[in-house]
Amino acid sequence: MEKVVMKFGGTSVADEGRIQQAASIIIEEVQRGKQVAVVVSAMGKTTDQLLALAEGMNGNAEDRELDMLLSTGEQVTASLLAMAIAGRGIEAKSFTGWQAGVITESLHGNARIEEVNAEKISQWLASGGVAVIAGFQGMDEQGELMTLGRGGSDTSAVAVAIAIQAGACDIYTDVEGVFTTDPRLIKDASKLSEISYDEMLELANLGAGVLHPRAIEVAKNHQLPLRVRPAHTEGQGTIIKEVFQMENVQVVRGIAFEDDIVRLTIIYDTPNNGSLANVFTTLAENHINVDIIVQTIMDEERPSVSFSIKNDDLAQTLEVLEKEKAKLAYKKSDFEVGLAKVSIVGSGMVSNPGVAGEMFDALSKAEIPVKMVSTSEIKISVVVPSVNMDEAVAVLHKQFALQLAV
Amino acid sequence: MEKVVMKFGGTSVADEGRIQQAASIIIEEVQRGKQVAVVVSAMGKTTDQLLALAEGMNGNAEDRELDMLLSTGEQVTASLLAMAIAGRGIEAKSFTGWQAGVITESLHGNARIEEVNAEKISQWLASGGVAVIAGFQGMDEQGELMTLGRGGSDTSAVAVAIAIQAGACDIYTDVEGVFTTDPRLIKDASKLSEISYDEMLELANLGAGVLHPRAIEVAKNHQLPLRVRPAHTEGQGTIIKEVFQMENVQVVRGIAFEDDIVRLTIIYDTPNNGSLANVFTTLAENHINVDIIVQTIMDEERPSVSFSIKNDDLAQTLEVLEKEKAKLAYKKSDFEVGLAKVSIVGSGMVSNPGVAGEMFDALSKAEIPVKMVSTSEIKISVVVPSVNMDEAVAVLHKQFALQLAV
Repeated sequence: MEKVVMKFGGTSVADEGRIQQAASIIIEEVQRGKQVAVVVSAMGKTTDQLLALAEGMNGNAEDRELDMLLSTGEQVTASLLAMAIAGRGIEAKSFTGWQAGVITESLHGNARIEEVNAEKISQWLASGGVAVIAGFQGMDEQGELMTLGRGGSDTSAVAVAIAIQAGACDIYTDVEGVFTTDPRLIKDASKLSEISYDEMLELANLGAGVLHPRAIEVAKNHQLPLRVRPAHTEGQGTIIKEVFQMENVQVVRGIAFEDDIVRLTIIYDTPNNGSLANVFTTLAENHINVDIIVQTIMDEERPSVSFSIKNDDLAQTLEVLEKEKAKLAYKKSDFEVGLAKVSIVGSGMVSNPGVAGEMFDALSKAEIPVKMVSTSEIKISVVVPSVNMDEAVAVLHKQFALQLAV
Repeated sequence: MEKVVMKFGGTSVADEGRIQQAASIIIEEVQRGKQVAVVVSAMGKTTDQLLALAEGMNGNAEDRELDMLLSTGEQVTASLLAMAIAGRGIEAKSFTGWQAGVITESLHGNARIEEVNAEKISQWLASGGVAVIAGFQGMDEQGELMTLGRGGSDTSAVAVAIAIQAGACDIYTDVEGVFTTDPRLIKDASKLSEISYDEMLELANLGAGVLHPRAIEVAKNHQLPLRVRPAHTEGQGTIIKEVFQMENVQVVRGIAFEDDIVRLTIIYDTPNNGSLANVFTTLAENHINVDIIVQTIMDEERPSVSFSIKNDDLAQTLEVLEKEKAKLAYKKSDFEVGLAKVSIVGSGMVSNPGVAGEMFDALSKAEIPVKMVSTSEIKISVVVPSVNMDEAVAVLHKQFALQLAV
């Protein structure tokens, strides 16, 4: 019998009405003859409310206690959804993460799933019942409750799907699927009917935000098809799976963008490769995420390196650089705010070397200055002034004919 | 090192302020050099709010799912209280019921504790930390979450205290302790400094309500001293322990009362002992609690039996009696509403046969009619008209000089 995992995020179970709606969607799948395991997030703002309570107790609460507190949120949703399903005559049981056999490493607040012992769930599914599993959580070998960190419920869903050997994992969201770019910005953005894991990974990492990169990685490793589906309409969403290239495949599949980027440049007055590594090690130790890195060796005796960070991290970055100046042995630093990143993504790029040229040409014709460039096999990112971000997205969406994408 | 269990009920952890107050009381005990395990209920109205959510999902939700839902309430309190304690520099960890090793029978919604495997808790206490345990819950052998039913957190606290071999179990409440009767009714009611398990059991069963009878029974079986203490003042509360009678002990220790009682009478027209048992078996099968039972054999050929029930159960009781009339083989039934029960309680009664006479005499002088009587070794209950209830309590409180009780 076909097995499927259905995942409902916080907005899709935000209140009684949404939970009943989720129950309807689940029952339809059951009535199609499938074995259904469901993974849920906490209701809407529950996690934020619990965090506010914690803040009132102790501004610096231990991660262990936050895990004890927050893991109740998904347990509440799971039991309520199981009740809603059972109320319509379909057998359903809720399971905490540990009851579902989700074993994690011991890292409070950000644990990775090590394995899923799915016997209990599989037995229940085989008996004809719906399993409703609290996402975002598991237990370590010592019996301590762990949460999985951002995007954890997506990862729970994928891990459960692999453990029960489901044919697919459907991620229900409040959008119609994965689009060529944000439809709020570009009116004729198209919904993609399918996209490869790698493309989705790049789009997810670039902030397209419907699915967590960790979940995509795990799904890719096990070749588990993912489907991003709307919880509020009959739309078929977007399937994420291994896509094999045809000759006439669309080269660029989507455009991601992100505002509030800062470029930092560090200039040395002597050649010093050791220091260069030191910069990024030091920033990493201070939990500052560096994105694009460009090393320019205009003058071999006076190398410089530029990198992009988020606006929010600027003050701390400058502080760290100043404090470590002696150790890092640089001459001076410089920064530029008011920047944004725009990226084109597509597996076809690897065999189409002209794409970068086409991108720069289009931006140049629109008189949009390019401050930094970064390329991978399936992605080209440019840093442009924030004021030009929207236009850059529009220009590129049109240039690569994404309004016609499927 | 001295070990103590401290239990905080829903009103004592109702909001941030109350939780911080509980943390202060706990820290004082730690600073007195004690090892402290804490057992908590859900915050204030949390359980009611969760039940309302469940009602919205499914008016007839399974007990298993209600247990999954409700057990989150105590987990939230436990983690918040642990954070509050840790925030003041004292090591504290929260534990769910199952993490604390509370193993129950498999009976959702009303499970009894079978054992407490307290190794984890004991280790943590020995290392100098405070253990904050979610009350009202445990896990069965199959890993299913169970709640303990009414008064469950009191029972959790007592069971944990026994398992860790604590010297005492302190139940923190919003009252000063156990009183000779309700101080809201009788202004000069006295707080008792100590009371025996049996006396407390009678008072608890009669609705004095500060402590659950199950908890008292378990404490009695293990001779664990219990203390009912105020969470909001420095008051020393009331100690519940085995009290050995001295010659001059006060005979009556407290007066309990309960309004909204109905007397039902069933009249047979033939001697029929089998039927009599049938009545109470049938009512029990329909979950109707019968309290006082009085069999009057005024006429041996036409026996009758009277019993008291709660007002709320009247409609269902009449329905059951009517439906089973043939089987129960009675001639007619009759009922009287607007009654109340007043009970005097005291271990000394067993050796003081004059107490009942003194009680009836006092009520008679006050012209309060007595409708039914029931006696045990340490309790005498009378059923009187509701309109006379307050006066009966006042008359008896004065008669037995309880304003002087200690």
